Formats: sequence, C-alpha cells, structure tokens
Amino acid sequence: MNLEDYIRDIADFPKPGILFKDITPLLSNHDALVGCANMLAELSPKNMKIDKVIGIESRGFIIGAMIAERLGAGFVPVRKKGKLPYQVKSKDYGLEYGHDTLEIHIDAIKKGEHVLIHDDVLATGGTADAVCKLVEDLGGIVVQCNFIMELDFLNGRNRLNAPVSALVTYE
Amino acid sequence: MNLEDYIRDIADFPKPGILFKDITPLLSNHDALVGCANMLAELSPKNMKIDKVIGIESRGFIIGAMIAERLGAGFVPVRKKGKLPYQVKSKDYGLEYGHDTLEIHIDAIKKGEHVLIHDDVLATGGTADAVCKLVEDLGGIVVQCNFIMELDFLNGRNRLNAPVSALVTYE
Repeated sequence: MNLEDYIRDIADFPKPGILFKDITPLLSNHDALVGCANMLAELSPKNMKIDKVIGIESRGFIIGAMIAERLGAGFVPVRKKGKLPYQVKSKDYGLEYGHDTLEIHIDAIKKGEHVLIHDDVLATGGTADAVCKLVEDLGGIVVQCNFIMELDFLNGRNRLNAPVSALVTYE
Repeated sequence: MNLEDYIRDIADFPKPGILFKDITPLLSNHDALVGCANMLAELSPKNMKIDKVIGIESRGFIIGAMIAERLGAGFVPVRKKGKLPYQVKSKDYGLEYGHDTLEIHIDAIKKGEHVLIHDDVLATGGTADAVCKLVEDLGGIVVQCNFIMELDFLNGRNRLNAPVSALVTYE
C-alpha cells in the first residue's frame, strides 16, 4: 500500500502559498486507515514497553488512539489552552507569527513512563518539541515522535531531542 | 468492566455550575480504552454494513477511529468552521449562548452510504443533530448515533431523528 496515494494536496490552505497535505482520503478508506496505524505501530521501538501514546490535538487523536491499542498503551491527549478540565502543565511554543500554548493533565504521565508522541505531520517541529518538554516536565521519557508525514525541507527533525519516524517524506 | 470507574467529575468546568465528565482517565487506561471501543462497536446495528464512522471534533476522533476499524468502515472527521481544507458543507447549530458551525467534506459520504455518528457525550443533542443533517445533505443514511455517555436529564435523545446508544447514562 502506498499511503501517498491517499494524501491530497490542497493549494493555499490555511493561507495563500501553503500547499496543505490533506489526510482525509486516507482516513475515509478503511484499508488505508488500518494500514497506516499498523505501519506506525510497527515503527515503534521494539525493545521496550510503551506506557502511553500521546496524540496532539486534533488530527493526532485519530491514529494516536489506534497506535495505543496496538502497543498495549494508554492514550493521552495534549490539547490547546483551556480545553483540558483537570490540573495541567502548560508550554508556550512559537509559531510563524506569534505563539500558542499546549497543555497536558498533570496526572497523564507517571515518572519514568515510556511515551510515544504521535501527530499527523512534522513541519517545523515546534509543536512536537513543546510536547516533548511537557512529557519531560512530568518525569516521562520520550522514546519516539512518530508522524504520518514529514515535511523534510522544514528541518523539524533537527529540532527534536528524541528519535523521529515518519511514513511519508516530502522533500 | 465498569466504565464509570474511569470517568472523573470536574466541578465548574468549562464554567461555574457545570459538572464536567472527564474521560481522560478512561483513555489513559489501556484496558478501559479498548473495552470502551469494543462495547461501542458491539452496540452498532448488526444487520447492515456500516460504510463510514463520523467522529465529532475533537474528543469524538479518539474512539471514533477505533470503532471504524472494528466495523470495517472508513473514518470521517466533522470539524469546526475553517478547519477542513477541501470543499465543505456547513451547518449552524444553536448553543446555550449564540451558535457555532460544523463542517464536513463534500466527498466524505457517498449517496446511500450507512453512517454511524460517534461523540464522547450526548448533552442537549444540538451538535449531533447538526451532524445528522450534514450526513443527510450528502445523501447518507444515519444508522446510529453512539456515545460513551448520555446526560439523560438534558433530553438530547428526543432531539435526534436516529437510533441512539450510550454506554453510561447519568440521570
């Protein structure tokens, strides 16, 4: 299965000049959806137990939970500011213009737990880097950041202080 | 397994006077996560093929994709205004104060397809009702709306013109 066949280019979204990679055709095809989750789980470190899989709001929730199921792990959502109801740790991160804030529940990760972080796309790495720092703040160990797609020309991988895997790379 | 054991009450979230039902303890426990998805899939109509499972942004994405896997269906996200990159159908729906808009890609559902709608909680039913109307606008047939939790005292079930199932009911 070639996952790229199920990823659609959308010009000028969310703003002019951006070529957006739309994964909804992949999600809506049962075999591609299941195949993608299988391949991401297969990429995970094989020599250790993964305790938690984090999905980053909101596209990271979709395949993130399917990976958690495959790895025998629990699922943890990291969300935008103000969306999680219990006590949180917060982390600001820079965007192209301005900044944003991500949050995690303070009881979501226990000290020493092995954590896999999942999102649909690795771009500049700012978001995933903030999530790595949230995990470390809670005493967890990031064992991998995995993505369906990597936009290699943005060098996000170099920003992350953890092993990175992706199924589809755009040069 | 008693799912209620994994649902936590949070007082005054998102605003004073609301007792919020927090499912993050359920998600972070592997057995509860998988058990919840199994039980929701088990509740689905048994006498027909389900073509698509819709998850409503964003908590509905988490278990929605796991249900789609179990039913041999594709997964379709319904999102807030401006989040989906391709051409959309939109539906306004009333909130307690003001209104909001949900969107679905115009090619997400084909005419005659059987659609199961999933979200974490059924409250007043305004959101799920808007999603039912989006599915019908695209020519799909809503065969079930299913939820982890139902807040029975808000009578959301009466507002929905489709079969409703929930795993946990709060009177």
